[in-house]
Amino acid sequence: MDIKTLVAKIRERRSCLCVGLDTDPAKLPPGLKMLDFNKAIIDATRDYCVAYKPNLAFYECLGTEGWEILSETVDYIGHDHFTIADAKRGDIGNTSDYYAKTFFDEFGFDSVTVAPYMGRDSVESFLKYPGKWAIILALTSNSGAEDFETLVTDSGKRVFEHVLEKSSGWGNAGNTMYVVGATRAEMLADVRKIVPHHFLLVPGVGAQGGSLSDVMKYGANDQIGLLINASRSILYASQGKDFAQAAASEAKKLADEMALYIA
Amino acid sequence: MDIKTLVAKIRERRSCLCVGLDTDPAKLPPGLKMLDFNKAIIDATRDYCVAYKPNLAFYECLGTEGWEILSETVDYIGHDHFTIADAKRGDIGNTSDYYAKTFFDEFGFDSVTVAPYMGRDSVESFLKYPGKWAIILALTSNSGAEDFETLVTDSGKRVFEHVLEKSSGWGNAGNTMYVVGATRAEMLADVRKIVPHHFLLVPGVGAQGGSLSDVMKYGANDQIGLLINASRSILYASQGKDFAQAAASEAKKLADEMALYIA
Repeated sequence: MDIKTLVAKIRERRSCLCVGLDTDPAKLPPGLKMLDFNKAIIDATRDYCVAYKPNLAFYECLGTEGWEILSETVDYIGHDHFTIADAKRGDIGNTSDYYAKTFFDEFGFDSVTVAPYMGRDSVESFLKYPGKWAIILALTSNSGAEDFETLVTDSGKRVFEHVLEKSSGWGNAGNTMYVVGATRAEMLADVRKIVPHHFLLVPGVGAQGGSLSDVMKYGANDQIGLLINASRSILYASQGKDFAQAAASEAKKLADEMALYIA
Repeated sequence: MDIKTLVAKIRERRSCLCVGLDTDPAKLPPGLKMLDFNKAIIDATRDYCVAYKPNLAFYECLGTEGWEILSETVDYIGHDHFTIADAKRGDIGNTSDYYAKTFFDEFGFDSVTVAPYMGRDSVESFLKYPGKWAIILALTSNSGAEDFETLVTDSGKRVFEHVLEKSSGWGNAGNTMYVVGATRAEMLADVRKIVPHHFLLVPGVGAQGGSLSDVMKYGANDQIGLLINASRSILYASQGKDFAQAAASEAKKLADEMALYIA
């Protein structure tokens, strides 16, 4: 999906919600299979979101069966939503080539999350596919983000700012996005100084406690430029039989709040 | 496998060779299946190495079939060699828990390579399993290592030195190793100042051009403390019918050189 189409979908739906399909096999409602759960969540939330983000860990842990469920989930989402393989991959060039092939060609994802630690040749493989995206970790939402991402270098810039600066030159705003956690919304303004035009994938709203209004306020640009992810707060809004209905309500609530900021 | 057993195996075989099973489906000898190729390589190299490191990208790109091949490959290796899932994973805690479960419980790997960018909670999940290991990327062998890993911080230390310092306190030399590329052998001395007792997994000998003698000279400690990986130079030593024989020769050559340094 190209940037124009993505922006058009956000404006049309007045939502930049991404639903994180972190489908925990241990948290499924009794008697329900993972694929059926995903389908019910997708049907319940389609109208309120523009993107889905399956988290690979939850599928890989089931082995070949999980791989099948992931593939069928991506097919079920279809092409009306932006799809993100939350895989956090990154390896030397000839290896990253294979990861890119897997997620773009085999599964048909629009994008993959990529860890930047190993530098340029670990990311470039994901920038060679027209209409596909690398979503690079910049400033994440977890507590460990303070271990290395925010280290100050001798030039006065923090490590995540180096990541933004350097890597934004490897691709462009049409094939690169950045992960910036909502739990650090005040830093979104700093991020925007370096990458005013790039889309940001913002996790951490919901279960992790980030503020949606702060994210919209500090992170939005004139093309919106945000995909705001919620996973657990939607998926497990209810653990009873009404889980899909509860997921729809939660997604609608977030979308309604986003609509206030989307002209 | 615990550190005592690993060291004993290295001394017994007088080799610290790790064979990287980066089995590229596009480079198999004509008519040979990936699993049969792996089995032939393993049989040919068993006596000359102490570890095997399948690179996940090459298996994932085949979808569920690749997952099966990986699982059967790990079973075929057995328990006489240290096994490394070269997966370079790393995510927030509840997600990393699932990656750890996959590689340790489902596949039975001894260790997983882990990307440190997201910090402590992205690594800790891999340190909770007795006898299992996290192998953290510190200074990698690729050109992109100079983008972020070697950035100098305001304390005068480089980012990879922060990674070594901080993360060595999360676990210990019995459950944590570090990836340090052979292409930067001169920096092994710097690494050893920070982590004198930890094992280092050293890629970059062979196809990537690193010097084995430099690695032994700068990297070994009194328990050897090294796993030196070669992948392509062994796997594709010949692309003809004699590929296994050629792999054995190449592995033996490396092991013979290592033996000079292993008392």
